[in-house]
Amino acid sequence: MSQAMTTLYGPVAEDMVLVEDLLETVKQTDVGPLSRMLEHALEARGKRLRPALVLLSGALGNYDLNRLVPLGAAIELLHTASLVHDDVVDGATSRRGRPTSNAIFDNALTVLLGDYMFANAAEMVTRTGSLEVTRLFALALMKMTSGELDQDAAAFDVGHDVQQYLSRIGGKTAALFANATEGGAILGEMDRDTVAALRVYGYSLGMAFQIVDDVLDFNGDEELMGKPVGSDLREGTVTLPGLLLLERYPKDNPIKRFFTAKRDRERHLQAAITTVQDTEVLESSMDMARDYVRRAREAIAPIPDGEAKRSLVEVTDYVLDRSS
Amino acid sequence: MSQAMTTLYGPVAEDMVLVEDLLETVKQTDVGPLSRMLEHALEARGKRLRPALVLLSGALGNYDLNRLVPLGAAIELLHTASLVHDDVVDGATSRRGRPTSNAIFDNALTVLLGDYMFANAAEMVTRTGSLEVTRLFALALMKMTSGELDQDAAAFDVGHDVQQYLSRIGGKTAALFANATEGGAILGEMDRDTVAALRVYGYSLGMAFQIVDDVLDFNGDEELMGKPVGSDLREGTVTLPGLLLLERYPKDNPIKRFFTAKRDRERHLQAAITTVQDTEVLESSMDMARDYVRRAREAIAPIPDGEAKRSLVEVTDYVLDRSS
Repeated sequence: MSQAMTTLYGPVAEDMVLVEDLLETVKQTDVGPLSRMLEHALEARGKRLRPALVLLSGALGNYDLNRLVPLGAAIELLHTASLVHDDVVDGATSRRGRPTSNAIFDNALTVLLGDYMFANAAEMVTRTGSLEVTRLFALALMKMTSGELDQDAAAFDVGHDVQQYLSRIGGKTAALFANATEGGAILGEMDRDTVAALRVYGYSLGMAFQIVDDVLDFNGDEELMGKPVGSDLREGTVTLPGLLLLERYPKDNPIKRFFTAKRDRERHLQAAITTVQDTEVLESSMDMARDYVRRAREAIAPIPDGEAKRSLVEVTDYVLDRSS
Repeated sequence: MSQAMTTLYGPVAEDMVLVEDLLETVKQTDVGPLSRMLEHALEARGKRLRPALVLLSGALGNYDLNRLVPLGAAIELLHTASLVHDDVVDGATSRRGRPTSNAIFDNALTVLLGDYMFANAAEMVTRTGSLEVTRLFALALMKMTSGELDQDAAAFDVGHDVQQYLSRIGGKTAALFANATEGGAILGEMDRDTVAALRVYGYSLGMAFQIVDDVLDFNGDEELMGKPVGSDLREGTVTLPGLLLLERYPKDNPIKRFFTAKRDRERHLQAAITTVQDTEVLESSMDMARDYVRRAREAIAPIPDGEAKRSLVEVTDYVLDRSS
């Protein structure tokens, strides 16, 4: 983990290695091809934001690593599995500069790889010893897949509004963040009000995270992101900046022109991207992200001060300020 | 359910409607495209053998339908979800005479449909109130996907033996049968010996079931099966009859000729199918299925006589004698 993350994760930073160790055991299987595929899928190490949220939430109460670490690893594994399937679904050949599993092993085997990872994550979450946390975990996966499915079914369709977008990213992204913080709070044996507060914190943080992601798709550094600017739009996905552009400039809108263009599609795409970049819609989107961060902070405001709480507050800043 | 199945499932036949009712609730979702896809995927009603095994196993002990029905429905849903993904993986366009989900909705959305069904099944199994049963359920899915993955990775490869085949179908098919009977026994609060006996029964029954399936792929009625004879071989999957043919006639083997043929592939395939049909390998395969059925019956022999036990014995006959 980078120095920045170690500082950010504060009191739980050292224990994050236990999550890594548990994720490492996932690669152990007798089935040869599966073992090689897991090796590749788990090689790219992200910031481990979701497991850190589990540990930080648990650290506000009864900090039992025997229960928190399996939840953290299960959530990270579920997240990785969903990326594996998303790349099959989108036909993506690279992610953050690395070839995707489907680019190396073909779609068919990669679908099964993702299934195996989902199953392994489900098995891992039962090690928390909590049926309630296990059930919330399954519900989060239901929300994630319906959000993703709703998004894909709506590709190249401009007839959606901001409310639908928020509901979609609520499923696709925020549900798992909420699962991390609520699950950590339940395992930390906190009272019902604190559990609810941490669920709201996680959900709001996840919403902000996804909105920032969607803004970075327009103004991020291509090198850092490992993908060209405007990738979502190219796939037909209209995220918040695009929706605001459609709402505010309904006539002769460049996104509509791109979606309906029979020729010169690349030129139309670039025109749409440039318009998004040059108008106020990116800043308006960031305003919404900041609003969600405000809600996240408000939710945990009643929780007594301490190291873990301070880290949770700092994470909200990180989510807004990150550049990749 | 057909009259034959009602007779077969004896004391639990009437309660199987509760499993249907619970499966019906799976279709309820606000996400429009998902709802239509679930409608299609859950339309084809099979024999519900796996949920019947859950209820019959539970009926040997404390018959609590509030716990057994969620497990039965979860296992049937998991089974259906795995077929949905298998059809994507195999590029199958029809199953039992109906178009597959991927043929109607495209591969991308169908991958997500299957994910949603897996998640819903995982949520449903937590309603059993048993963390142990939930964990076994997740483990069964891990075995199923590794078995399937191992099979697909070995396509068009003749370098495998009967032992590998048995281990593969043990994961692909028998693991879920074992989960049904072991899970039912645990929920029925039976003693550890009876739970173990029912696991062995379910596993052995599942092995016999899959071997018979693989034999029917060579000698079944194409109309009843809804697919042409030799479909497995066409996809490059060598099942028990083919493995025995390769083992007993290693020289100038028609399966090897088919797999390596650059032209006239259809003629080579038909020659391989005819050879399997005309040699003793189908009967040898059935001998192995009968042997597994014998083990299944032996496992439950110590259990006191009763209606549910008699049904479990009759199910073993049904698995051997079925024609589709």
